Formats: sequence, C-alpha cells, structure tokens
Amino acid sequence: MNVADLTVAKINALVVPTTEEWVEQAIANLDTILLDHSQCERKAAGVALNLIFRYPSSQKLVRSLTAIAREELEHFEQVNQWLERRGIPLAPLAPPPYGAGLKAQIRAKEPERMLDSLLVSGLIEARSHERLGLLATHCPEPELAKFYRGLMASEARHFGTYWILADTYFDRAAFTQRLEELAVVESQLLSTLHPQPRIHS
Amino acid sequence: MNVADLTVAKINALVVPTTEEWVEQAIANLDTILLDHSQCERKAAGVALNLIFRYPSSQKLVRSLTAIAREELEHFEQVNQWLERRGIPLAPLAPPPYGAGLKAQIRAKEPERMLDSLLVSGLIEARSHERLGLLATHCPEPELAKFYRGLMASEARHFGTYWILADTYFDRAAFTQRLEELAVVESQLLSTLHPQPRIHS
Ligand SMILES: [Fe+2]
Ligand SMILES: [Fe+2]
Ligand SMILES: [Fe+2]
Ligand SMILES: [Fe+2]
Repeated sequence: MNVADLTVAKINALVVPTTEEWVEQAIANLDTILLDHSQCERKAAGVALNLIFRYPSSQKLVRSLTAIAREELEHFEQVNQWLERRGIPLAPLAPPPYGAGLKAQIRAKEPERMLDSLLVSGLIEARSHERLGLLATHCPEPELAKFYRGLMASEARHFGTYWILADTYFDRAAFTQRLEELAVVESQLLSTLHPQPRIHS
Repeated sequence: MNVADLTVAKINALVVPTTEEWVEQAIANLDTILLDHSQCERKAAGVALNLIFRYPSSQKLVRSLTAIAREELEHFEQVNQWLERRGIPLAPLAPPPYGAGLKAQIRAKEPERMLDSLLVSGLIEARSHERLGLLATHCPEPELAKFYRGLMASEARHFGTYWILADTYFDRAAFTQRLEELAVVESQLLSTLHPQPRIHS
C-alpha cells in the first residue's frame, strides 16, 4: 500500500461526516472545546505510549508511535498555552461516551487486540483531523483558526501511520474488513450529538 | 528554594555513591545496558505522563512534566537509534528489583502519594544522572561516551524539576525529611549488585 492509497482509504474510513450541529455547538463553546482538546492530546500521547509498552519488540511500531507520542505532547503543550492565554485553568472534563464506546470494540485476544487498537486509534485521529479542519474553517478568531489549521497536517500523518502499521502487521483483507466494521461503529457513536461540547461529542 | 540550593540538595540526595563493581559490570555489558537504558527512558516518559493524568489540574506539574516526558521520548528515540546501529533488536528485559522496590515506598493516600511519587521519580533521575556520568567517563567507545555525556545535562534538569515540584506543592520540612528517608531506601536497594547488568542493577 503506498501513501496515495492510504490517503484515499482515510477519506473513506469515516463513514458519516460531522454534522452542522456539532460545528455550531463547538463554535458556541470554544473555551470548553479547547479544554477538551487538551485532554484529547494528552490521551493520544498516552495511547501511543501504551502501545509501545505493550509491543516493545515491534521495531516499526515503536519507532512510529514514539514520533506520534512526541508530537501529541507538543500539541498538548500548545493547547495548554492557548488555555493559559485565555485564562482557562486546567481541569478534568467528563469525557463523552465516544472513547469508551470505541475501546469496547477492541477484542481482548492477540493478535486481534493489536489490530483493533491500531484501527481505533487511527479512526480517532481521522475524526480529530476532520473536526479540527471544521474548527479551522468556522472559528471566528483568526489566530485560533490558524492554530487548528496547523494541527491538521500532523493529525493526517497520524492516522496514516496507524493504517500503515495495521498494514505492516496484518493481512490486507483482514485489516480493511475490520476497519470498515469499526468505522461504522465510530460514526454510530457520533450519530446523536452529545449534550456537552467536546471534540468527539 | 533557588536552583543553586537544588543543585546542592541533589548531590546529597544520593546517600551512597555507585560502586566500582557496577561500573565494571556495565562496561563489560554495554549492549545489555543500552537495551535496559532504552526501557528506562520509556518508563521515565510513562511515569511523567501518568503523573500528568493523575494531577490534571496542577498547572505547574503539568507544564514541567510535559517537558520532561517530551525529553524522555527523545532520549528513548536516541537510545533506540544506538541499538539499531549496533544491530540489537528491541526486546523486553527483566527489570532489576530497584523500580518495584522504590514504588513500594509510595504511600497510597493523598497528598502523601503525590509527594512520594515526585521524590521517587527525582531519586531515579538523580541515580540515572550519576550512572550515565560514570558511563560517560568509563565507556571505551568515544562516540557512545559522548552520547552519555550529552544525556547527563537533561537528567540533572529532570531531578531538579522533581525537587522543585515537591517544594511547590509541599512544606519544605516534610519534603526534605521524606527525601532523606527515601534516599536511604534507594541506596539500600542498590547495596548488593544485581546479577543482571542494568542501569539500576
Ligand atoms: Fe495531536
Ligand atoms: Fe494525533
Ligand atoms: Fe532521559
Ligand atoms: Fe530523565
């Protein structure tokens, strides 16, 4: 699979695009979205690092996910600087059901666990990429919009990395079939707007 | 507490210096030490990130430990490049009793848990700093010795950061008394050389 194929695969990976409703909710609650975004970056770093811990001998996985974890921590730092600039104190926010709903899809037995973990992470990155793009387009504050646009490129690389890893360690047919299944669940989890504004509400 | 005080405090934090015996064991097993070192950097990043997850509202802790986690991941990447250059495949190594022995000292109840976690992390960083310095001095391969020397500066900043955080969130007297207690345990854990060569054997 070359990178061009992966780019196409990625656009198709998200079964249902984000609604107008989410965009309105997010734009009306930019501070909460920023706070939730900070947690998303922290979690993205944590997930990458956990996979490195779980598969310490998988050279390519370790190398790729170290790079992702480093970038997510940089994003976490950047989002936190935005929070500081806006006078928003760091505080935990109740997460939307999205993450737990996807995590529940990860099968417990190896090697399925590894495949599902990679695909779930890739889908979350793909959705984040889509939504940060929507924030970049609709955010009324030009500097913040520019920040979101800047993050998009990394997030696109991130889901590309997860697809490449799935393709490295698994059979192409098994990988794409499971991706399609998980993508359906991913869109279902977002089909009703969560009342609290979140990146994945 | 200013940085000058912290530098002094740090030298005193390690109760017993590393023995000749450890240096000989390490220099005779440079490949194993590199592999273990890779795991130490990964764990150091994991510990910093876990503390961020556990204390998400502690602004200063989050900021300082994000910086540490980023640096540890960079070190992890660099050590892994050394492994690759030497043809050593990534593989998990049984850890020495040191880490678990120190972790067992962390009291379960807050705020003691936070204090102990910061001090244990600081002590591990202080010992790593001391031992990387010994490797820098005794390693017969000049390029590898240079690499160890380069890491030392960051590790010194790291334990400095942990002391500063302990001093930020806790009473000075409580902090220094507990540090002395934990430092005694830390040295005791290393008083008998672990048969397997490790950074903390
Ligand atoms: Fe990110
Ligand atoms: Fe990402
Ligand atoms: Fe390090
Ligand atoms: Fe360190």
